Amino acid sequence: MGKVPESDCSIARSLGVLGERWTFLILREAFLGATKFAEFRDRLGALVEYGVMEREPYQEPGARQRSAYRVTPAGSELRVVLHALQQWGDKYLPRPEGPSALRRIRGTDLPVHVGYLDDQGHEVALTDVAVIPAGRSQG
Amino acid sequence: MGKVPESDCSIARSLGVLGERWTFLILREAFLGATKFAEFRDRLGALVEYGVMEREPYQEPGARQRSAYRVTPAGSELRVVLHALQQWGDKYLPRPEGPSALRRIRGTDLPVHVGYLDDQGHEVALTDVAVIPAGRSQG
Repeated sequence: MGKVPESDCSIARSLGVLGERWTFLILREAFLGATKFAEFRDRLGALVEYGVMEREPYQEPGARQRSAYRVTPAGSELRVVLHALQQWGDKYLPRPEGPSALRRIRGTDLPVHVGYLDDQGHEVALTDVAVIPAGRSQG
Repeated sequence: MGKVPESDCSIARSLGVLGERWTFLILREAFLGATKFAEFRDRLGALVEYGVMEREPYQEPGARQRSAYRVTPAGSELRVVLHALQQWGDKYLPRPEGPSALRRIRGTDLPVHVGYLDDQGHEVALTDVAVIPAGRSQG
């Protein structure tokens, strides 16, 4: 990974890597399967530096060697951030035509949402979530 | 709400409102209880326009009337986006001192994470989540 942005807040650090709109839109394209777009190159460099995407050489018959860009496991875990944004946009910035994409359990028509979970994998309501300074106890 | 940014993708629309790093950091402050910081004023205007925050007049004894800024219910639902970013930063951009803040079930020391859920409130693995174009069926 590249140099970690300075901040004691992990939200600020994440946004140091991810904070620009363009970054998210590149990632969305990558999740949808794009690997080769030359116009993504500059921004992609920053994502490679931070370990969110990686370069892999490829060569088509008769062409010179090029770089393909793939999402790393670290990058893959950003899907939940994108999907949380998607969910919020669908609810609070809707369009008359409805959403352009739907989250489903693979191979089914069952919907999936982003939310909070305890360690047993059960949903926790937003109103039951507390964020406390590290080192302090509530219990 | 303000003018909805143009895009058929709700991620892009959400980021049209939220895309700048500064926006998230304002929201973080608001979630932590900040209401009055004059230096937030310009950015706050955009968040008010989009319905993420709202103005409320207040007056301290002997002072002129000012605006307090509060997170709306729509804004409150952005917590899950911030917490997904926080979780990712804690894992992939860690600091030697560990995280500065912890997500807990209110009144307990039980940890909370952000993830995917089905309609019964049970966790869905990232690898089981599919995003499909609206109007198409997998089932």
